[in-house]
Amino acid sequence: MTTTKNSSVIFSSRPDGFPIPGEHLQVTNDATINLDSVPLHGGLLVKTIALSVDPYYRILMDRTYKLGEPIFGHIVGRVIRSELEGYNPGDYIYTEEAPFQEYAVVTRGASQLRRIEKDAATWVQYLGVLGMVTRTAWIGYYALAKAKKGETILVSTAAGGVGSAVAQIAKEQGLKVIGSAGSDEKVKYLKEELGLDAAFNYKTEDLEAVLKREGPIDIYWDHVGGKTLETVIGNMNPVGRVIICGVIEQYNSKDNTGFGVKNFSLIHSRELTVAGFWVNPLEKREGDFGFFKEMPKLVREGKIKIREEVRHGLDTVPQFLLDIQKGKNVGKAVVIVADE
Amino acid sequence: MTTTKNSSVIFSSRPDGFPIPGEHLQVTNDATINLDSVPLHGGLLVKTIALSVDPYYRILMDRTYKLGEPIFGHIVGRVIRSELEGYNPGDYIYTEEAPFQEYAVVTRGASQLRRIEKDAATWVQYLGVLGMVTRTAWIGYYALAKAKKGETILVSTAAGGVGSAVAQIAKEQGLKVIGSAGSDEKVKYLKEELGLDAAFNYKTEDLEAVLKREGPIDIYWDHVGGKTLETVIGNMNPVGRVIICGVIEQYNSKDNTGFGVKNFSLIHSRELTVAGFWVNPLEKREGDFGFFKEMPKLVREGKIKIREEVRHGLDTVPQFLLDIQKGKNVGKAVVIVADE
Repeated sequence: MTTTKNSSVIFSSRPDGFPIPGEHLQVTNDATINLDSVPLHGGLLVKTIALSVDPYYRILMDRTYKLGEPIFGHIVGRVIRSELEGYNPGDYIYTEEAPFQEYAVVTRGASQLRRIEKDAATWVQYLGVLGMVTRTAWIGYYALAKAKKGETILVSTAAGGVGSAVAQIAKEQGLKVIGSAGSDEKVKYLKEELGLDAAFNYKTEDLEAVLKREGPIDIYWDHVGGKTLETVIGNMNPVGRVIICGVIEQYNSKDNTGFGVKNFSLIHSRELTVAGFWVNPLEKREGDFGFFKEMPKLVREGKIKIREEVRHGLDTVPQFLLDIQKGKNVGKAVVIVADE
Repeated sequence: MTTTKNSSVIFSSRPDGFPIPGEHLQVTNDATINLDSVPLHGGLLVKTIALSVDPYYRILMDRTYKLGEPIFGHIVGRVIRSELEGYNPGDYIYTEEAPFQEYAVVTRGASQLRRIEKDAATWVQYLGVLGMVTRTAWIGYYALAKAKKGETILVSTAAGGVGSAVAQIAKEQGLKVIGSAGSDEKVKYLKEELGLDAAFNYKTEDLEAVLKREGPIDIYWDHVGGKTLETVIGNMNPVGRVIICGVIEQYNSKDNTGFGVKNFSLIHSRELTVAGFWVNPLEKREGDFGFFKEMPKLVREGKIKIREEVRHGLDTVPQFLLDIQKGKNVGKAVVIVADE
């Protein structure tokens, strides 16, 4: 083998608002790679089959991604060369830390690197319902929600990947589940497909009124932050729990001031707990609560399903990342990069 | 026995700011009680020996105390009559729910009602270092701080009852302890008497600068809320814990809007946990973590000491409550009401 074209999604300049395709992220088709000689430093050379686009990549643009280099994230791929024990050419792998390129060098010790079986699930499922998104829902829920049957949970962005997984896990457990979403079509999906007890369009319905009708809330799964969070805190039961899984309202704010949450004193008077988390360090601290054992079963039984929005080609990544920041996607965002 | 004078601390009108002696609280000397015939409804008739004045009584003025009736709180007293099994005339009792009167009817089931030994501790100790204040520190700390040796804790109002107990418990456990207080005299006390690693006067020193010098903070024990809390959140280590034990800044605010905490998103990005609590329900949920077994020993060994400010006579209660709202007290506020 000689030199091969290796398209990449390059972090080309730092956004201070939404990440604009072509400006902050560029897909370059002019890079090449020598598949025989590229140094692996004890890692793997992988052909990227599919990748996942997730909201938090926006945060990595603020502090982690390096300018001029490929962004990285979750992929499934096929091993071409290996310097890592236990991995052989032809194996399929999953990792959450691979550069977004047609051919990627995956370092030993890359986050969540593991071998996967070709026929146990689809590539989209590996990146979706068996991937970080559902693992975030599962581990966050079991570590932090301390849910009891009969309690009421409110899930924001409940039609999204994490949200819909949380909603279904809570439903399985016998909670009353209320979901918020940004379109009537998503609300319909939450009620009719996922069987939530209540769902509402946060763009057209008044949150306070919804909470007065459907609440009070014992558990709030928050992806939003800001004014929404303040309103929910004002409608929580004593000893309620707020799980902060994301703060989309602030990912793309130009100044870093943020919304001032004024009713903090209710955290005291109502004995609330507010906990922020990231799944990988949380898993390291508290374990996986049986995710890898339980989730494939629940998926097979149809008890956990998530919508998938699949696009094709590395070229689609920058626009996809913008779309999910704006809530324009309709499910877990996965890009098919190549045939195996 | 016939009719006896029974002075009382009456809740006479509802404050919307600081509780003014004579306006919102009045001590009346014209009420009487018939010690032989006053109905006990299965409870106790008690002669009040001493009582405790605590900051949170101010909150009870907003939503719990009834206008025209005595306020209630923590007392030690001697039983005069009993309709309650296990209690006899001459016994000494502690409870956190007795009306503030010379002679008080204590209902069966009053919060934390228990018999105490006359010679095991002083009455002031029963209301101070063995009372709710230290129990709040102990149970809150063990249930919520999840402290590890070598971590850094910041305690606000560290010269106060709860604060100084938390500081000493944490010091015992091998933490770096930083205390804030409102006067140079208190700062000196924290450093020289309690041996804190660092202490500062929040009225004259810049919190941000102190935290840059002494932090970052793993655990923040908060009695204050507002801007102070926001500044501390901005200086916390990942996986830090904020324990909200009080929100003095808001107890006496005229509007209920509160300060807007703007850096809520750090709770997510740094995986912080913010937990509010009240000791009695927390104890009911999680147990007492050996408080009644361990604390008397620690007190005897001089490992936990708290300052006591003792005043004499029911008449002193309204001003004392105002003084502790303004931080003018110099330790746990106890009022001696009568000789035994």
